[in-house]
Amino acid sequence: MGIIVQKFGGTSVADPQKIHNVAKAVIREKENGNDVVVVVSAMGHTTDHLIKLAKEVTSTPDSREMDMLLSTGEQVSIALLAMAIQSHGYKAVSMNGQQVGIVTECIHSKARIVDIKTDKLQKKIEEGNIIVVAGFQGVTPDGEITTLGRGGSDTSAVAIAAALKADRCDIYTDVEGVYATDPRIVPNIQKTDVISYEEMLELARVGANVLHPRSVETAKQFNVPLRVRSSFKLDNLGTLIIGVDNMEIYKPVAGVAADSSQIRILLSELPDIPGTAAKLFGSLAKSNISVDMIIQSLASNGTNSIAFTVDAEDFESTMTTLEALKAELKAGEILIDKDIAKVSIVGAGMVDRPGIAADMFRSLAENNINIKMISTSEIKISCLVEKENAKNAIKALCKEFGLESTESADVKGDLPDV
Amino acid sequence: MGIIVQKFGGTSVADPQKIHNVAKAVIREKENGNDVVVVVSAMGHTTDHLIKLAKEVTSTPDSREMDMLLSTGEQVSIALLAMAIQSHGYKAVSMNGQQVGIVTECIHSKARIVDIKTDKLQKKIEEGNIIVVAGFQGVTPDGEITTLGRGGSDTSAVAIAAALKADRCDIYTDVEGVYATDPRIVPNIQKTDVISYEEMLELARVGANVLHPRSVETAKQFNVPLRVRSSFKLDNLGTLIIGVDNMEIYKPVAGVAADSSQIRILLSELPDIPGTAAKLFGSLAKSNISVDMIIQSLASNGTNSIAFTVDAEDFESTMTTLEALKAELKAGEILIDKDIAKVSIVGAGMVDRPGIAADMFRSLAENNINIKMISTSEIKISCLVEKENAKNAIKALCKEFGLESTESADVKGDLPDV
Repeated sequence: MGIIVQKFGGTSVADPQKIHNVAKAVIREKENGNDVVVVVSAMGHTTDHLIKLAKEVTSTPDSREMDMLLSTGEQVSIALLAMAIQSHGYKAVSMNGQQVGIVTECIHSKARIVDIKTDKLQKKIEEGNIIVVAGFQGVTPDGEITTLGRGGSDTSAVAIAAALKADRCDIYTDVEGVYATDPRIVPNIQKTDVISYEEMLELARVGANVLHPRSVETAKQFNVPLRVRSSFKLDNLGTLIIGVDNMEIYKPVAGVAADSSQIRILLSELPDIPGTAAKLFGSLAKSNISVDMIIQSLASNGTNSIAFTVDAEDFESTMTTLEALKAELKAGEILIDKDIAKVSIVGAGMVDRPGIAADMFRSLAENNINIKMISTSEIKISCLVEKENAKNAIKALCKEFGLESTESADVKGDLPDV
Repeated sequence: MGIIVQKFGGTSVADPQKIHNVAKAVIREKENGNDVVVVVSAMGHTTDHLIKLAKEVTSTPDSREMDMLLSTGEQVSIALLAMAIQSHGYKAVSMNGQQVGIVTECIHSKARIVDIKTDKLQKKIEEGNIIVVAGFQGVTPDGEITTLGRGGSDTSAVAIAAALKADRCDIYTDVEGVYATDPRIVPNIQKTDVISYEEMLELARVGANVLHPRSVETAKQFNVPLRVRSSFKLDNLGTLIIGVDNMEIYKPVAGVAADSSQIRILLSELPDIPGTAAKLFGSLAKSNISVDMIIQSLASNGTNSIAFTVDAEDFESTMTTLEALKAELKAGEILIDKDIAKVSIVGAGMVDRPGIAADMFRSLAENNINIKMISTSEIKISCLVEKENAKNAIKALCKEFGLESTESADVKGDLPDV
């Protein structure tokens, strides 16, 4: 007997029939003797439809008004899911972000949660209700409606679980759990039963899109046990994500992922004087651009070259920043490489086992895959390769580190929305 | 320089192009030097679509959840209209019922407004914003979302105008104003320039559907000048609706209307003992059924018969009530007549001019229209006729009381939603 927070994405509530399926999964948890809070996203393509409407009104919709607009999507699905649960004879009540009191900063379209009021939630739970909460949305202390941006609904669910000190937060998706890599690339991949927050975070950062890192970070911060599980196979426990301290054993490599969304930028012939890198990356940071891999090298003529990667969606603003800086930095050329992919291996056990990096480089070399850049963290090693080699690299690394299974992974439909 | 509240219905904001047309009408009023608050309904068929969705989930949707669901419709249109206004270079901000503080009773699906907070509205107005408010919705002191039921958006607009002590509330519709009768029946009908609240109320009650009586009652109560005007002809001033005390002249008959939504019920052979009528109509009132016309007559055999009319939508519950009462009342038969229409003339000047009723009866008689029941009030005379005679009755009465015009009324599209 405890509190379970469940989260269902947009594809799970895409039509009335699917909403009834979700209602059954919710009721199942209630019948297990738990109090249930269920967080849902907007139905199917509702958000896309609303964005399209706004774009028809103006090419530059105001972000406050966009939040007002988009937050209606989740309000529709919570009302319908509450009705569906009630139609099966259970007490249910829907609550939007404002009603719960999911308090956020006043940054429209990507607000962060600063507080979740639990008094109304607790009261409705004590009255025997299943609570259906609108994900992805919040309210500022001034009563302005905000949305949480990417990964918002998962983050809503985890934050509510943290606030209610829930026993667990179950993220229902189209897949059966977390796989060591994308099953569309390596069909006979192992499903992971338990993985640490830290490993999930690294996997998410390097391109695995089962969970948005933001939700995992929140779970880690408040130590909320997360379960990624299938909407279709309710008996399957999926993958449990917990703190590394709570794990008894872990593999040296828990997962392999590739990220093809990055672009490599090389500034050549920079004068070798102090402060160049600081100026460059300081300016990019000021423009809110996250830089991923960085390599600086000294050329034979005494000039420096700096190569770094940015996310494709930050490319335009990166170029604007660089053009403005070019003269000041006295840079020679700016070279762009879009045909790259970052292939990474992640594992909390890496730190105890020397030679994992060498195994990775050797495996890639044996498969004729050239490495353009390398970066490492305590539990991750990333190699930049030609985009066309990314899938082969993943296959080779899954084999190298024993992540294959004797069975094929069962993947229904698309990967979940994050 | 003052405050003008404008209201646009669902057909006026049915698509992005129409939303831009509304934006222009709003900006026009702002350019006249006024502060503007604009109240809008849900886009086009949004509400119908949402109701259909709910019915697909359950045949008996909970009214609280329906309000949660339906209130999203207006929130979409306010966001889009605010964006449209901004795209023309004006400051605008949308506010839902909760954000304004349109406080209602906690009666879902037909809540009444009990208070409108003006502090946030005033603050946003002072900051130079055009305020775009969601009609039809409110919030209880507990933060529950409510909807106002039929005529809700017009009522929202009038109530906001009253709270802000606005100079005027303009209800934009598909018609050019209030006509002395439905222009689809009498094409060469006069448009009314000025009419009193009282006359509008009687006209609405007897079947004219330009404005829902609820909004007119609110306007009357707070003495808010109302203007019904065309969304298509912004230069046309439409019809001004004000208190009868403020009117200098008024016609004996301001309008003619027919209501075909009533059903006549006759209880025959009731014993002639005191309390029968009280018991009958008391029970109907307890079941929340409004009875319109009533006639009681003594038959030659010493029994009474009571005939009355109810709205078609109350018919089923009326019959349930009557079946339960039949034995107690010792009634003979219950006779039902659905083929009836109530034709009414309305005019504040009626009270000063004797003979208007006689003129009405004579005119109907000259056109071979039989009168089944009659009821009168200070400013209204209603006659129940065969349904098939309703249109002819209207034509005859418009002619009789000089309400025809030399021009045809210009009616675009459907009559407005109420």
